[in-house]
Amino acid sequence: MKAAPKKPSKIFSQAHLYFEELQEKICAALEEVDGGGHFTADTWSRKEGGGGRSRVLEEGGIFEKAGVNMSMVHGMMPESIAQKMNVPQSLFFASGISLVLHPRSPMIPAVHANFRCFEREDGDRWFGGGVDLTPYYLFEDDAAHFHNQFKQACDVYDKSYYPKFKKWCDEYFFIKHRAEARGIGGVFFDYLRDDATRTFDFVRSLGDSFLPAYLPIVQRRQNEPWGEQERSWQLLRRGRYVEFNLVYDRGTTFGLETNGRAESILMSLPPVVEWHYNRIPVEGTRESDLLKVLRHPREWVVNGNA
Amino acid sequence: MKAAPKKPSKIFSQAHLYFEELQEKICAALEEVDGGGHFTADTWSRKEGGGGRSRVLEEGGIFEKAGVNMSMVHGMMPESIAQKMNVPQSLFFASGISLVLHPRSPMIPAVHANFRCFEREDGDRWFGGGVDLTPYYLFEDDAAHFHNQFKQACDVYDKSYYPKFKKWCDEYFFIKHRAEARGIGGVFFDYLRDDATRTFDFVRSLGDSFLPAYLPIVQRRQNEPWGEQERSWQLLRRGRYVEFNLVYDRGTTFGLETNGRAESILMSLPPVVEWHYNRIPVEGTRESDLLKVLRHPREWVVNGNA
Repeated sequence: MKAAPKKPSKIFSQAHLYFEELQEKICAALEEVDGGGHFTADTWSRKEGGGGRSRVLEEGGIFEKAGVNMSMVHGMMPESIAQKMNVPQSLFFASGISLVLHPRSPMIPAVHANFRCFEREDGDRWFGGGVDLTPYYLFEDDAAHFHNQFKQACDVYDKSYYPKFKKWCDEYFFIKHRAEARGIGGVFFDYLRDDATRTFDFVRSLGDSFLPAYLPIVQRRQNEPWGEQERSWQLLRRGRYVEFNLVYDRGTTFGLETNGRAESILMSLPPVVEWHYNRIPVEGTRESDLLKVLRHPREWVVNGNA
Repeated sequence: MKAAPKKPSKIFSQAHLYFEELQEKICAALEEVDGGGHFTADTWSRKEGGGGRSRVLEEGGIFEKAGVNMSMVHGMMPESIAQKMNVPQSLFFASGISLVLHPRSPMIPAVHANFRCFEREDGDRWFGGGVDLTPYYLFEDDAAHFHNQFKQACDVYDKSYYPKFKKWCDEYFFIKHRAEARGIGGVFFDYLRDDATRTFDFVRSLGDSFLPAYLPIVQRRQNEPWGEQERSWQLLRRGRYVEFNLVYDRGTTFGLETNGRAESILMSLPPVVEWHYNRIPVEGTRESDLLKVLRHPREWVVNGNA
């Protein structure tokens, strides 16, 4: 096996640097909002090449568990991954940031974001990413605000991006065996091979939109009252989050298959989860209202406005 | 698509009847031991042919969640399943019983058992099954007793069965991304195509061994003291149980892929589960002792005796 190419391209290195900075910026902002918890930092290396930095906040004031992971790995792409990505096996570089936040309050939605840059030895390079919101109780204005932030970021680059990536997100975060979406979506894209500088600008614009898309929702919902019933529904729905991540999520299953660092990959799993047999919410309740939206994804931004 | 053959073979029908009776017998015995909970019963049918009966006990005296599922399905085998089973696609019958018990006390191990008979249109027929024990605190005499019961059941039929099926079990219930076994094993086998009557007798003998293998352990451990620390370890280890079932277990993944009844398939998931980042037990504790055994599966029956 040949050694990895000594250096990735300039644009890759810029993207990597941006992801590192974004990790720090997001962690700092989340600590401030949380008002109690602190992020630990674990730096780890990968036998086959590269490594990462996992930052976790547990048992905070707002966040029951928040994981913000950054990694840059390189080496020979496993054959199984090359097949699934539909590219020839080759040396590669991959850099990315991935975060999942699980607030304690069932009134504040969980959220996921991931941005990545992939580069093969022959110079083939693409960006991918996604953000999606998982409320346990639906507040329509939260959903509209979240979508609208990313629509605006998309529209600057290509008016076709938001509709396309919103749909892709609905299709991707779908729990087939439950016939329901994980949450109310956001945007998702992969294999974006347009002009590199412009694509990186676009990805940076999405990354920069994360805090303005999510933090106002936290602030709006943090004093919303909740009790045992709402907590119980949240724990049950978190089970669906686990089912999606372990059964369908490509990042998770590929990571586990390729001998990734299990603790960093599974940082995304919620802190406390429950499974009860066949627990179906009563028609007309807020719990049942959420299910309707998960079964029939909606448009959250109409005519260019939230 | 042709209709399913009108009738399965006599031996298949006998096996199916046995599984139905075993479900009732096990549920009755568990209710008695539990001393508080009762099994509900849900009968369901499968659009493509067949159906099942799911029995669940939740929030009992001993069992936090106990699921005992019985199903008999028939129809055209999906191509993906035929491929994985390495048999030609054809009409089929499949009958089986599957149970997972999650006691509340971390001192009482969780347990799983599954027995099944599979028959293809051309008469090709095989049995499969397995039982395995998942302790959260290791009591060596429990492990030896459990293994010894199934070794005795195996030895009557073939002295090579126990060593072979014990090893198969260790290999099957292995969580690759954690490099540890789910529990302390038991026996596991599949595609057993020896003389049908004799094989059915063997499977029945294993099925009949379930209660004598497990109930004495419940009785021995139910008064063992435990507190918050032990509960917390149990909830963390239950996370590994979920990871195994959703990422690796063939019954679960095939069931979900083939549009099986999600609530029955996922009955196996523990009622309350926790994931914490990188929580590693301190060397020399009972928690760390368990991990050693999970990383290096042991022989529990030596020279024919426990």
